[in-house]
Amino acid sequence: MTLDEQGVGRVRPGPTTRVRVREVSGAAARDRRDDLATEEPLEIRIAAGGTTRTLAITMRTPGADFELAAGFLWGEGVVGPDDIASIAYCTDEDLPPEARYNTVTVRLHGETLPDLPTMHRHFMTSSACGVCGTASLDALRTRLPTTPPDKTPAPPDEAPARQPDEALARAFPPVPAEVLYALPDRLRKAQGIFGKTGGLHAAGLFTPDGTLLALREDVGRHNAVDKLVGWALMSGRLPLGSSLLLVSGRTSYEIMQKAVTAGLPMVCGVSAPSSLAVDLAREFDTTLIGFLRGERFNIYAGADRIASQRP
Amino acid sequence: MTLDEQGVGRVRPGPTTRVRVREVSGAAARDRRDDLATEEPLEIRIAAGGTTRTLAITMRTPGADFELAAGFLWGEGVVGPDDIASIAYCTDEDLPPEARYNTVTVRLHGETLPDLPTMHRHFMTSSACGVCGTASLDALRTRLPTTPPDKTPAPPDEAPARQPDEALARAFPPVPAEVLYALPDRLRKAQGIFGKTGGLHAAGLFTPDGTLLALREDVGRHNAVDKLVGWALMSGRLPLGSSLLLVSGRTSYEIMQKAVTAGLPMVCGVSAPSSLAVDLAREFDTTLIGFLRGERFNIYAGADRIASQRP
Repeated sequence: MTLDEQGVGRVRPGPTTRVRVREVSGAAARDRRDDLATEEPLEIRIAAGGTTRTLAITMRTPGADFELAAGFLWGEGVVGPDDIASIAYCTDEDLPPEARYNTVTVRLHGETLPDLPTMHRHFMTSSACGVCGTASLDALRTRLPTTPPDKTPAPPDEAPARQPDEALARAFPPVPAEVLYALPDRLRKAQGIFGKTGGLHAAGLFTPDGTLLALREDVGRHNAVDKLVGWALMSGRLPLGSSLLLVSGRTSYEIMQKAVTAGLPMVCGVSAPSSLAVDLAREFDTTLIGFLRGERFNIYAGADRIASQRP
Repeated sequence: MTLDEQGVGRVRPGPTTRVRVREVSGAAARDRRDDLATEEPLEIRIAAGGTTRTLAITMRTPGADFELAAGFLWGEGVVGPDDIASIAYCTDEDLPPEARYNTVTVRLHGETLPDLPTMHRHFMTSSACGVCGTASLDALRTRLPTTPPDKTPAPPDEAPARQPDEALARAFPPVPAEVLYALPDRLRKAQGIFGKTGGLHAAGLFTPDGTLLALREDVGRHNAVDKLVGWALMSGRLPLGSSLLLVSGRTSYEIMQKAVTAGLPMVCGVSAPSSLAVDLAREFDTTLIGFLRGERFNIYAGADRIASQRP
């Protein structure tokens, strides 16, 4: 995979933006400068041979744009581990400076684009009312693996065992509660942009012993996770069977879907999960932790991966 | 507008879902029941004559689904104030019970569907790299009004003045800081689902003197705003030139876009706005308040609508 970051040094949005603000406190007011998390649209395109296609426009915090594009495409089932040839900004001189870094093109090996994912296709499909959404809702599940990556059934005898149970146990040993208690503080302290702006979602990948592997921030919680998955994809780390994910807020279906697709055996959230996130965690045997604050948390699924819960 | 809520009484997802959870606190653990915010997909369809089309699938908290569909379509520029003939669930007996209330069809007057909004059309359009997203990004702005609703230029002399300046001033008088200080607590106390689940976005409409007009909750912050806008649309209150919006979290571009499209002159957030939310607020002369907590807040745009800031 080649990364083409040509054009660095031109006008380019940063992760924070300085604005003038009037601060009102009690009866007093003063004007000052304030740093905000930057939000800009990113158009994600895929290209193969002579064809280029826009797949999505997402509002994101600039930075790690290539990771965001790669992780998004992985999560949507558009690319596999060896499909990406290059990722580049579209920095035509004709464009206004502020738009030059808001389009990323992911070029695939080969001459033809893959089928677009079912979910996207379905959005604009006309269908009779009798179908009533069943097809659409089922489509949400088609991209997900049928067994969790760290519990893949043993392959038949004739094939060499790629992930025997012992290796899996070593890859993701039961996590002591004390390790989990320490994670939110570790995430917060590593959050560069939040400290400046006071408002940004964060997602972090940790080892089962609590070491921070990677942290990404974004105005969109799903983007922060896409950036992590893209980082893992671009550095050959997928699937993430020996890592756990911590998100700074709530855990929705979308977060769980991205986590399951990336092969993560455990997802922790500082706030509440949604009902569908719990359903998905249970269906795919992923451990789901919520309300991880101070010295407490709730286990919504997969309690067997928490050490202190074992008999 | 007729509302068809046939089928009430059948299996139908509620706003909260009870799950079994293991609570770990320090070294202790106990199993108990927990209420989570329900998250379920909602497929939004429009129909006219014999044609039905899926416009979006959004993950949402059930409840106020018709408002959500109506507000979403208003925000996307698909419907005007008098376009909706009926809104109904698609509750075919053939469907599994859990899917029956996850599809809403908005039927329009007339025999043909309107053009789909530019933004949606563009998502799947193939285009050369030279365009580089400019068209897409511009499309985000095409649906927005060019002047804020409470500052509409006076009509020419020959036409009767529909919104003279004095009437506008009465519709949205400058808001004292003390009124704003009281809003988050008022919103929180009225949040039924948050109290049970500890995790849900809320959006509230208030009068300029701080009276709560309507409150909606959802796992998605944009949905909570869509539900409010849909409520206003279905009760003939749009545009919302004499109301202000309070959101329980951050203010993103998407929230501001929905607010501007609904004609709201003021948006307040308990947390930070994004850079693009501030840009949009300034461009459309909408007052934007952030970090509204305790007896303080920041004014990012439109300080002239805050009484205490006047000379």
